[in-house]
Amino acid sequence: MTDHLSKHFDEQLDALKQSILRMATMVERAISLSISALVQADTALANQVIASDPHVDKLEIEIDNASLELLALRQPVARDLRFITTSLKIVKDLERVGDLAVDIAERALEVNCRPEMKLLPDYPLMAEAAQKMLKDALDAFVNQDVELAQNVLYADDYVDMLNEKLFRDLLLYMTEHPSDILCASHLMFVAKYLERVGDHSSNIAEMVIFMVEGRDIRHLEKIARLEEKK
Amino acid sequence: MTDHLSKHFDEQLDALKQSILRMATMVERAISLSISALVQADTALANQVIASDPHVDKLEIEIDNASLELLALRQPVARDLRFITTSLKIVKDLERVGDLAVDIAERALEVNCRPEMKLLPDYPLMAEAAQKMLKDALDAFVNQDVELAQNVLYADDYVDMLNEKLFRDLLLYMTEHPSDILCASHLMFVAKYLERVGDHSSNIAEMVIFMVEGRDIRHLEKIARLEEKK
Repeated sequence: MTDHLSKHFDEQLDALKQSILRMATMVERAISLSISALVQADTALANQVIASDPHVDKLEIEIDNASLELLALRQPVARDLRFITTSLKIVKDLERVGDLAVDIAERALEVNCRPEMKLLPDYPLMAEAAQKMLKDALDAFVNQDVELAQNVLYADDYVDMLNEKLFRDLLLYMTEHPSDILCASHLMFVAKYLERVGDHSSNIAEMVIFMVEGRDIRHLEKIARLEEKK
Repeated sequence: MTDHLSKHFDEQLDALKQSILRMATMVERAISLSISALVQADTALANQVIASDPHVDKLEIEIDNASLELLALRQPVARDLRFITTSLKIVKDLERVGDLAVDIAERALEVNCRPEMKLLPDYPLMAEAAQKMLKDALDAFVNQDVELAQNVLYADDYVDMLNEKLFRDLLLYMTEHPSDILCASHLMFVAKYLERVGDHSSNIAEMVIFMVEGRDIRHLEKIARLEEKK
């Protein structure tokens, strides 16, 4: 490859990276707004989250096409190949996080909880933890920072724990307040959705580690247990 | 490419296709067994589903590596490139369906519903519908059958409807049987998990249409509405 072509290739890779970051910022914001809509019972805000999701979807297709074009025209190898195929996978996680924001917004429209409902304040805290995971996973991707990616994986346990705690608290709440069963049922799902945001962030973090080190840590412990049994 | 190399390439593509089919059969079976475990309150069966998931995970990594190798060594273009990048994405959906089977099995271990609970028989029916979508999506992938892929997309509405119906029925059931709130809460999630199996099948069907026709139908209606607003 001539220097001229190679420079152009680097620029294309950088443009791809920037698009992924833009998509990540959009879905992070969507999660944050959907939780505000839920907690403040803000119908207009919930509708705004739902209306903005097609922008995320459009970006997904653009990034996919850009990745395919780079694969077809540049036929990259080694680290560049891993970067582009990782991008193809990361956008899928990001698109799904966008959908989860819509799911939360739709629940916010239906949930009809009393504003003083004592478990509501737990949601912005949980959302913040899940969003931080997502932000860190993307920072790790951009800066090829394996240590930060590893931290995302540790943080996932905390978000899982919050989801389990909310499930138990909401069960108890339903038993004590049967008239709030509808509200509490929707809130169970919102906690699960935030936990899924954490899972997608973990997926991205694992892919970053693979991209940088060429070491696949997905399902590592589970598969190791499998080998032991043989 | 010489004839000899080209034949070898076709064989590698075919091996990739066979591995994806094997993975699909594994996760279909896992969904089916997890629902049996739930309905029959069969702890051993639920544990079997959980124990077999690492085999699915291992296959995901093998297929990913095979796809990356084909991209790096063969530098395919056009239809072959689309086939391989589609494979990379399909395995992500299949792996997630495997996880959903584990999620259902874990709920089956905790759910503790009375065997005569009237909504339980709805679950094998819904699981069957979701599994048929997955099977059809993979058949569409293997036979490059756009019409069958289109049918999968239609079937998704039915599975969504079943999920919404079960959510409403379970809400009512909780109100009438407060002592069964734990059972009903878990069942709400199981219905949602089966609906997600349908969503993943739809994702695969959309990718098949893209792979065969080079026409991206993902988010088509939503993005069209976005363009209209401009």
